[in-house]
Amino acid sequence: MPDKSGSMNGAQALIRTMVDAGCDVCFTNPGTSEMHFVAALDSVPQMRPVLALFEGVVTGAADGYGRMADRAGSTLLHLGPGLTNGLANVHNSRKARVPMLNVVGDHATYHKQYDAPLTSDVEGLAEPLSHWVRTTKSPTQLAADAAEALAVANTAPGQISTLILPADVSWSEAGEPAKPTTIPEPPKVDEDVLVATGDALMRKDKTIILMNGRALRADGLELGSRIANTVGARLMCDTFTGRLERGAGRATIERLPYFAEMAMAELEGVKHLVLVGAQEPVSFFAYPGKPSYLVPEGCEVHVLARPEQDLIDALERLADRVGAAADAATIQEASRPAPPSGALTSKTLAEGIGLHLPEGAIVADEGNTEGFLVPVFAAGAPPHDWLSNTGGSIGLGLPLATGAAVACPDRKVVCVEGDGSAMYTIQALWTQVRESLNVVNVILANRSYRILNIELQRVGAENAGERALSMLDISKPDMDFVAMATGMGMPAARVDTAESFAQEFARAVAEPGPFLIEAMMTS
Amino acid sequence: MPDKSGSMNGAQALIRTMVDAGCDVCFTNPGTSEMHFVAALDSVPQMRPVLALFEGVVTGAADGYGRMADRAGSTLLHLGPGLTNGLANVHNSRKARVPMLNVVGDHATYHKQYDAPLTSDVEGLAEPLSHWVRTTKSPTQLAADAAEALAVANTAPGQISTLILPADVSWSEAGEPAKPTTIPEPPKVDEDVLVATGDALMRKDKTIILMNGRALRADGLELGSRIANTVGARLMCDTFTGRLERGAGRATIERLPYFAEMAMAELEGVKHLVLVGAQEPVSFFAYPGKPSYLVPEGCEVHVLARPEQDLIDALERLADRVGAAADAATIQEASRPAPPSGALTSKTLAEGIGLHLPEGAIVADEGNTEGFLVPVFAAGAPPHDWLSNTGGSIGLGLPLATGAAVACPDRKVVCVEGDGSAMYTIQALWTQVRESLNVVNVILANRSYRILNIELQRVGAENAGERALSMLDISKPDMDFVAMATGMGMPAARVDTAESFAQEFARAVAEPGPFLIEAMMTS
Repeated sequence: MPDKSGSMNGAQALIRTMVDAGCDVCFTNPGTSEMHFVAALDSVPQMRPVLALFEGVVTGAADGYGRMADRAGSTLLHLGPGLTNGLANVHNSRKARVPMLNVVGDHATYHKQYDAPLTSDVEGLAEPLSHWVRTTKSPTQLAADAAEALAVANTAPGQISTLILPADVSWSEAGEPAKPTTIPEPPKVDEDVLVATGDALMRKDKTIILMNGRALRADGLELGSRIANTVGARLMCDTFTGRLERGAGRATIERLPYFAEMAMAELEGVKHLVLVGAQEPVSFFAYPGKPSYLVPEGCEVHVLARPEQDLIDALERLADRVGAAADAATIQEASRPAPPSGALTSKTLAEGIGLHLPEGAIVADEGNTEGFLVPVFAAGAPPHDWLSNTGGSIGLGLPLATGAAVACPDRKVVCVEGDGSAMYTIQALWTQVRESLNVVNVILANRSYRILNIELQRVGAENAGERALSMLDISKPDMDFVAMATGMGMPAARVDTAESFAQEFARAVAEPGPFLIEAMMTS
Repeated sequence: MPDKSGSMNGAQALIRTMVDAGCDVCFTNPGTSEMHFVAALDSVPQMRPVLALFEGVVTGAADGYGRMADRAGSTLLHLGPGLTNGLANVHNSRKARVPMLNVVGDHATYHKQYDAPLTSDVEGLAEPLSHWVRTTKSPTQLAADAAEALAVANTAPGQISTLILPADVSWSEAGEPAKPTTIPEPPKVDEDVLVATGDALMRKDKTIILMNGRALRADGLELGSRIANTVGARLMCDTFTGRLERGAGRATIERLPYFAEMAMAELEGVKHLVLVGAQEPVSFFAYPGKPSYLVPEGCEVHVLARPEQDLIDALERLADRVGAAADAATIQEASRPAPPSGALTSKTLAEGIGLHLPEGAIVADEGNTEGFLVPVFAAGAPPHDWLSNTGGSIGLGLPLATGAAVACPDRKVVCVEGDGSAMYTIQALWTQVRESLNVVNVILANRSYRILNIELQRVGAENAGERALSMLDISKPDMDFVAMATGMGMPAARVDTAESFAQEFARAVAEPGPFLIEAMMTS
């Protein structure tokens, strides 16, 4: 609410501007320099603040929110250190091309010169992972800066804006909130690109259409599938995708494998690679003596549409051009795995999830090695969304699930999470409880950085000794996720058979509120 | 060990170079790009790797190690995101002027161009908080770069070096390790500065000698106290200090208060402020209408020695110059509080710690509001070290205690930690258990970001509403630190009276290995 004089301070004008531009959720971990922002929350009831105990949860939740809401959520972070704690998940978000507005409090403009303990180069820290960074130095400029920051964030396909907010800018009189800045429409693909791509496809050579981003929603998938089937191409998506709409009744798409040698096998002999919002396939990591760039020699790469362009328009026009029939798409049939039994393995766990995944579920997937079969066995489940880790910075899953659940309170979120990965941002459980979010967290407990045991071999680091292997072994001491969840107020259960997992999972997804299942994997 | 040809790869040469330069502990959270470093660990048995589940623990532990070992410990971090997760505690370490070598794995030199998912501007992220940053591009340069990085890190008073290690540099043949680079001696203070400072002191106006850094060890304190007593000055240290040697038998020093108005009261009327490795006092945060710079008008500031200079030499010469007698220091008498009883408050908790703090204890202090009396009541305990959070980035305490315990296995570490603060890097408990470290973690459970309740008033954000206050309330849901500790394999107990706390604390410090006490504070 305005102060006695009827004017607003910077924080009030900022929050009002954010809400007016459709940014009405703020994931927070504030400190002293953000106290005026916090105090202003009650003056703009449309803004929903969601507190987290660690900033990696804040940014990862804003990522999950942005992916599901299709507009920027915001974060409130405490100076340089608060920002850096959140940057790993900002990295993931950036790679997923998710809209996000970070509001980073800083010392008062006149205070920064004194090198007080919390002084750091906030802009310098924000620059490498942000598309837009600005320190607002004048309270009367703040609302306009916020409107611009949000417009940049919400520009397709989604960008990272970081607005640095000195404490005195927050507490000083600021005038009026700013009107939302118009968000530019994604540019349409040039006709000559379309013609050239259509011509290449019509040759009916061995072709892969590789899609990502907005093309992985139901409409894009159906268009891609119609085109691919018409010209005899394969339709694929990147290994890791920000949001993939899938399940029974939706057009199917194949996923490029994670391991480079497997991806190369898929790409072998391909003459045309058509990119729709996707990049040219490269190896996730480099390995001695193995190629980084996976497109085979002699394969022509056609960029139908870059990520920031209008992918759906491009696909529609391409479908017309190649004469794709309206019913040409390959549609996923409804199917569920049989009830699993016996040991709890990657397969039986995936069967249990596939069997009981509810309609409209959102899966936040950081299941890594143990979870790799979950998307396979869930393919025929009722329509659902799949969110994966696009940036490779581990510790996204639990926060991502948290933010997705804030964005979609009427849907069930399932977080498939490795035990090692879970520990980077385990504090997310507390926010899920605090907000009564509908999240079932499935912790795949194999007590190992399993992926690194594989990678250790793959990088050619042979004859690893006891110390090397100990760096991949998280069984000493063993963790107890039920105890940790309980410690943050979340009900939880431990299971160690296929039957008990399936039963517990079915029960948990049917009930409201958060739950954690510690799945003791048999390896 | 060298490969069959007798030569070393980059990782082996790097680790050997580190060990030869006295850097023989590496706090790690590795990923694929660090697998050759991990594999090389067994070839250099003098290097001790210490695994953590989150990078904020890695860097905070390296901080605690560096403070107690007086030489750089090292970290192993996974590309840009691994580095950013560790940067908040690097910030703290930088403000405490602690030596630290960060080894950050990156993509292979030739792989970076492909913008694979984990690609980011690692140098850009490292620059703002490092004194030295280099990406080694050639394996034969790696050992020399590492030697230089360590020499910079170990240059007084202690600096942050960040060595970025592309995967192919790690796995390629690298030749020989490098010999340690000579560490420059801290420069001595000019005679004319000494004379001028001595002259100012001899005037015997109202004077404060403000010390920090190396001057806060026993020898520096005694010199400072002799000088102060000789000229009738007050001897003070900054509010937050990297390492303060104190307790019975050591020279006493007063601490500048945290709150600016209280610090100003101490400084009022002071004519001469003599800085010994300290900065001019400024407010921790800015507050509307209050000054940032706390030195009163008319006070002359004398920089006896900058942090990077030889503080002990300067104090010795100054003591001679003012004719300070050898026995002029004020020595702390041995004294212990009486056994506390009744409600568990800031006072009775501090009494319990003061009563039972063992000789040689190292206190990692992130007790914030509830813990502010602990140093007061522990002042007369047997000699001990006090490590505090110099950078204001919360989440340092548990990692700091972890690293201090690695550096000093024969001493008991006591971590005094707020409950809100503990949650930023709670994963440190696991590493303490894994390494059987002698740490007693005292969690001050008041279920609130209490400091922010105070700061909300102090910044003038009045009439805070329900939403604002909810952002400072971490009681919904309540946390159970005993359950969380148990979940990470650590024995733990909850206490809620002065008697039970003192009893549990006395028992815990007398036993080896880690323990957690959840102290339920009465507010």
